[in-house]
Amino acid sequence: MAGSTFGERFKMTTFGESHGESVGVIIEGVTPGVELDEAYIQVQMDRRRPGQSSVTTPRKEYDKIRIVSGIFNGMTTGTALCIMLNNTDMRPSNYDDIKNMYRPGHADWSYDKKYGIRDYRGSGRASGRETAGRVAAGAVARKLLELKGVSVLAYTTEVGGIKCETFDAAAIEANPVRACDPVAAEQMVRKIEDLAAEGDSCGGIVECRISGVPAGLGEPVFDKLDAELAKAMLSVGAIKGIEFGTGFQAASMRGSEHNDEMDASGFKTNHAGGIIGGISTGQEIVFRVAVKPTSSISLPQQTVDIHGNDREIKTIGRHDPCICPRVVPVIEAMACMVIEDHLKRQAALLA
Amino acid sequence: MAGSTFGERFKMTTFGESHGESVGVIIEGVTPGVELDEAYIQVQMDRRRPGQSSVTTPRKEYDKIRIVSGIFNGMTTGTALCIMLNNTDMRPSNYDDIKNMYRPGHADWSYDKKYGIRDYRGSGRASGRETAGRVAAGAVARKLLELKGVSVLAYTTEVGGIKCETFDAAAIEANPVRACDPVAAEQMVRKIEDLAAEGDSCGGIVECRISGVPAGLGEPVFDKLDAELAKAMLSVGAIKGIEFGTGFQAASMRGSEHNDEMDASGFKTNHAGGIIGGISTGQEIVFRVAVKPTSSISLPQQTVDIHGNDREIKTIGRHDPCICPRVVPVIEAMACMVIEDHLKRQAALLA
Amino acid sequence: MAGSTFGERFKMTTFGESHGESVGVIIEGVTPGVELDEAYIQVQMDRRRPGQSSVTTPRKEYDKIRIVSGIFNGMTTGTALCIMLNNTDMRPSNYDDIKNMYRPGHADWSYDKKYGIRDYRGSGRASGRETAGRVAAGAVARKLLELKGVSVLAYTTEVGGIKCETFDAAAIEANPVRACDPVAAEQMVRKIEDLAAEGDSCGGIVECRISGVPAGLGEPVFDKLDAELAKAMLSVGAIKGIEFGTGFQAASMRGSEHNDEMDASGFKTNHAGGIIGGISTGQEIVFRVAVKPTSSISLPQQTVDIHGNDREIKTIGRHDPCICPRVVPVIEAMACMVIEDHLKRQAALLA
Amino acid sequence: MAGSTFGERFKMTTFGESHGESVGVIIEGVTPGVELDEAYIQVQMDRRRPGQSSVTTPRKEYDKIRIVSGIFNGMTTGTALCIMLNNTDMRPSNYDDIKNMYRPGHADWSYDKKYGIRDYRGSGRASGRETAGRVAAGAVARKLLELKGVSVLAYTTEVGGIKCETFDAAAIEANPVRACDPVAAEQMVRKIEDLAAEGDSCGGIVECRISGVPAGLGEPVFDKLDAELAKAMLSVGAIKGIEFGTGFQAASMRGSEHNDEMDASGFKTNHAGGIIGGISTGQEIVFRVAVKPTSSISLPQQTVDIHGNDREIKTIGRHDPCICPRVVPVIEAMACMVIEDHLKRQAALLA
Repeated sequence: MAGSTFGERFKMTTFGESHGESVGVIIEGVTPGVELDEAYIQVQMDRRRPGQSSVTTPRKEYDKIRIVSGIFNGMTTGTALCIMLNNTDMRPSNYDDIKNMYRPGHADWSYDKKYGIRDYRGSGRASGRETAGRVAAGAVARKLLELKGVSVLAYTTEVGGIKCETFDAAAIEANPVRACDPVAAEQMVRKIEDLAAEGDSCGGIVECRISGVPAGLGEPVFDKLDAELAKAMLSVGAIKGIEFGTGFQAASMRGSEHNDEMDASGFKTNHAGGIIGGISTGQEIVFRVAVKPTSSISLPQQTVDIHGNDREIKTIGRHDPCICPRVVPVIEAMACMVIEDHLKRQAALLA
Repeated sequence: MAGSTFGERFKMTTFGESHGESVGVIIEGVTPGVELDEAYIQVQMDRRRPGQSSVTTPRKEYDKIRIVSGIFNGMTTGTALCIMLNNTDMRPSNYDDIKNMYRPGHADWSYDKKYGIRDYRGSGRASGRETAGRVAAGAVARKLLELKGVSVLAYTTEVGGIKCETFDAAAIEANPVRACDPVAAEQMVRKIEDLAAEGDSCGGIVECRISGVPAGLGEPVFDKLDAELAKAMLSVGAIKGIEFGTGFQAASMRGSEHNDEMDASGFKTNHAGGIIGGISTGQEIVFRVAVKPTSSISLPQQTVDIHGNDREIKTIGRHDPCICPRVVPVIEAMACMVIEDHLKRQAALLA
Repeated sequence: MAGSTFGERFKMTTFGESHGESVGVIIEGVTPGVELDEAYIQVQMDRRRPGQSSVTTPRKEYDKIRIVSGIFNGMTTGTALCIMLNNTDMRPSNYDDIKNMYRPGHADWSYDKKYGIRDYRGSGRASGRETAGRVAAGAVARKLLELKGVSVLAYTTEVGGIKCETFDAAAIEANPVRACDPVAAEQMVRKIEDLAAEGDSCGGIVECRISGVPAGLGEPVFDKLDAELAKAMLSVGAIKGIEFGTGFQAASMRGSEHNDEMDASGFKTNHAGGIIGGISTGQEIVFRVAVKPTSSISLPQQTVDIHGNDREIKTIGRHDPCICPRVVPVIEAMACMVIEDHLKRQAALLA
Repeated sequence: MAGSTFGERFKMTTFGESHGESVGVIIEGVTPGVELDEAYIQVQMDRRRPGQSSVTTPRKEYDKIRIVSGIFNGMTTGTALCIMLNNTDMRPSNYDDIKNMYRPGHADWSYDKKYGIRDYRGSGRASGRETAGRVAAGAVARKLLELKGVSVLAYTTEVGGIKCETFDAAAIEANPVRACDPVAAEQMVRKIEDLAAEGDSCGGIVECRISGVPAGLGEPVFDKLDAELAKAMLSVGAIKGIEFGTGFQAASMRGSEHNDEMDASGFKTNHAGGIIGGISTGQEIVFRVAVKPTSSISLPQQTVDIHGNDREIKTIGRHDPCICPRVVPVIEAMACMVIEDHLKRQAALLA
């Protein structure tokens, strides 16, 4: 396996497993001389950490990060940043009864087939805990993007069939599902609580908007900006799809409707979602991702054990009945990584 | 720009522009000692070439390929394959009146902003003609996959709001839109012809199924198989979204519905689309892409010229009123590239 | 900066700085299911660690490693291995008086020019301490190579003008300079001790032999086996040159002398050093590297401070008067990395 | 094989074989908006082409290049440049009697072992003809470097045991061996002619100086500037070693001698060769490469055929008795590629 690194000029390598000593990330290509401290990064970590609300897993991880290298006297040195956080609330015994069974929806089966061996404690490397490193790296990217006037905002627009009807940016961090519609948010919370009580889970949709991106980012023909954002998002565990601008709706539109016309004041619409020909247009970049329902449920399910025998399984553990609120900062982190990387690539092209 | 290469162990670098002498592709990592000839590749080229039916552009390119290197005595040598095809039906004069205007939906604006200079003849490098190289490389991948029992099949499932209701594999190549439902196909053709007559265009949806992929392909945590397929597909010009298995529908499903249970005979469902945790499960891989309506339409549209003045534009040229039928072989080619590359990466891991 | 990763299919990313909390390495592409423990790796760490003999720096670092991820029940899992070691004997105060001066021979000046900021404590990321991670990764590669019958052996052949006259493999680890000639070794030790007493240092030459490499490794035309070994070796701090086989002597040879003739029993000579056309021939791979004299000396030297003023400097600190004995395991580690990576790449090609 | 691409932000992919239709190169990351024409590139091609003097192969290739893409109205577009040149003087029949034998010093044996199949016509991909693409790409890099005040100069310093004693830049292109000492050059020519008459060949040393490189290029810890130059040079067919600055001589120097002291006017010496800690210091970069004697000689040599039988071989064909004069522009081209790439990487870091 050689897939732990993401990015070209601004890049991260994540490491660690759910039940090892620690998890973390190496970040390379950081602009030197930028003020950065742990508190700034911690803000993002706290948005991802477990146990933050009634609708997230009760696993207790305070996810207190420490910067191991790359900062000197409060400034980035330009050499690799290493950020780590310890695993503190591990309960390997929780996993004893499932070590011989494949949990439906989990990567147990596919890991076993790929490697012939599997660290079943909390899914090992396949654990969502790996995304802590991504969020830390994304926070560093966010700091660099702030200096360039770029901002990234993700939020939940649908949970368990309930859709947001309004967009209120101020509401997003004020409700536990990070929905952009405070009324829908209340319904979503109840829906999640009801499902959790039944031992079930649900999926949703997260939308992301990136503002302030200059026109010109993206590297045709393969490393197009939308192609790289798509890879970034699909690399996040629960994501099953992505669409830009009008996305799948475009399939039933006419060219005369879908084309974004221009006048002297700029583009008149943004059906393309801010990227045309794989290159940013200078408009807001808009995409949505489909989040599958959490695989870990306590309802009984049919499966097989490693010997191929039929078995029934109830996933015990501490899990999120809906991952949307915690996936929001991960989506933002990945978007920050992609944009900062492409800003640097564009600087290289023009150099 | 440094985005002309795709893949790691099995990889391609495309080159050339719509109105240059030729376009082509370099393919590296080809297994040595495999029988391969131009005729085998030409079959795929003919599925992508313009002018193949009433619903495609009348540009006349026979897209006759020649293998410039990498084959000796009818066998692959293991060194880089170079495949080229000449551009024969170029009409640069067609583009004279638009060299100073930005065509809505086209990459004219974004290329200008990225590079500060733009080859406006047939979109230059942004032309769909670049995908000829991809299809040639995909054909080489397809040959290698055949030897391993992997097959890739894409087809149109929706055009201009008309959806396929049945799946008939034999029908796909027998109708000009490459739809999997022959009845819907007839409606689609009429729809496209009607829109073309109006000077308009439409989008659609293409589905792809990959069979025979062994369990275990994909490289967590970033180079997951679905992440790499997503990047591959979004790198194709007109694609605006992708979803795996149940995709966006998963957002409104429960875990107990979405999880693919197993019994002694294997998986009972395939909501995941054949990839869990970023690794193939051994089931059929299934994904769908959203194809936007062709940007080139002859209806008048509002735009600006390079000086920022309001203008009206009618895109003259020879274009496809719906790109779905010709994008099908491109989707297949990209899928072949990704799977063959990951088979080779997995061999490296286990070595 | 994005240069902390080395390798393609078997690769490492090192992290950490001389005076931070810890240093370490992430290793990807490790064959799953291989028995591996910390003790095996520690053997190599002990060969590199400071304070191991009278001719190495007295800095006390026991370099006790711990495996943070990638091992489960004593076996590699195929996911990324993370190996860390704490920094314990840091004395940042030692560096206070040089933080404003550029030490001759050190990277102080060039780091300042590159980044505009410099962590002067023990050279930060430029410290030789970074090679601890390389040696840990190399030990993992060595384990995999053992299973394939490949062995790597490096040793000192020249120090301060004293050359080895004989080759005695058993002598290498039995003398503190790791020379292949025990008689020369004694002279070398005296030479180093004399120079150290004067406050000076000296360079040398290290040779490396790799046995058991199958014919066929290397990826023309750019990723040739010798090209990648050259990069690997020149990436080690003190190395100023590399030559393969007869190397620079080849410049004054005739083709009829230099060509390695063959007969039915194989090659009759090995002037090429086991690599022809960038591909291993199946013979022993032989190369030599030039090691510059340690830059840190306590003799007074002329330099400038960060304001451009003339200054005199004596490098205080705990340094190696000759780095050859400690660079030997680093050279071996890098060689192990390159060979294992290419074995995996070749498996991918043939897959 | 996946080794046909070199570089990260400024990169080239070469293609083609000695006896195919054509050879060429794709160049990516070219700064847009730079004036460039075929004549500028042709100057460098003519320095590499065969048949240019009495001491080079009489193979007649005029190596007339054409730019297939990436230029519009005389300016670079920022998209990939494709440069091609046809093979015109192929004589495959020359190789009929050696298709079953391994030529000593050639890559015949190692290619056969790697791929299990070999295109024996003119060495196929292993032919020195592949470097034509490198020289074309290097010329593009050279154009970009000119705009930044960087110049690259290589020249022969030793041939067949004859060493240059003086350095006269004006003499280099005025003598057929491209030596920096016109007196030594005459002796070298006679030496080469004598050896050629005997059916033998000889090696030499080429030195390269890069001026105007700003301090700060290179990416520790693995992608150091010297490490990447070393890889670039060792990827050239006949090169068997490289050394920077004092190189192998450093092995017998003391730290107090080798360290480059500074005063207010800058560095007082350049033993390091312009790179310290893997980063350019702003001084001239100086390195030397060892060139092996040409493997193709017409003297009889002992070898085996593909069935393992003892055989005698005389290499018929049209070859260079000493490759130094023609390798000089290749060394320069590779150096140009590395420096331009690192200038772009540094721009990305600071962005």
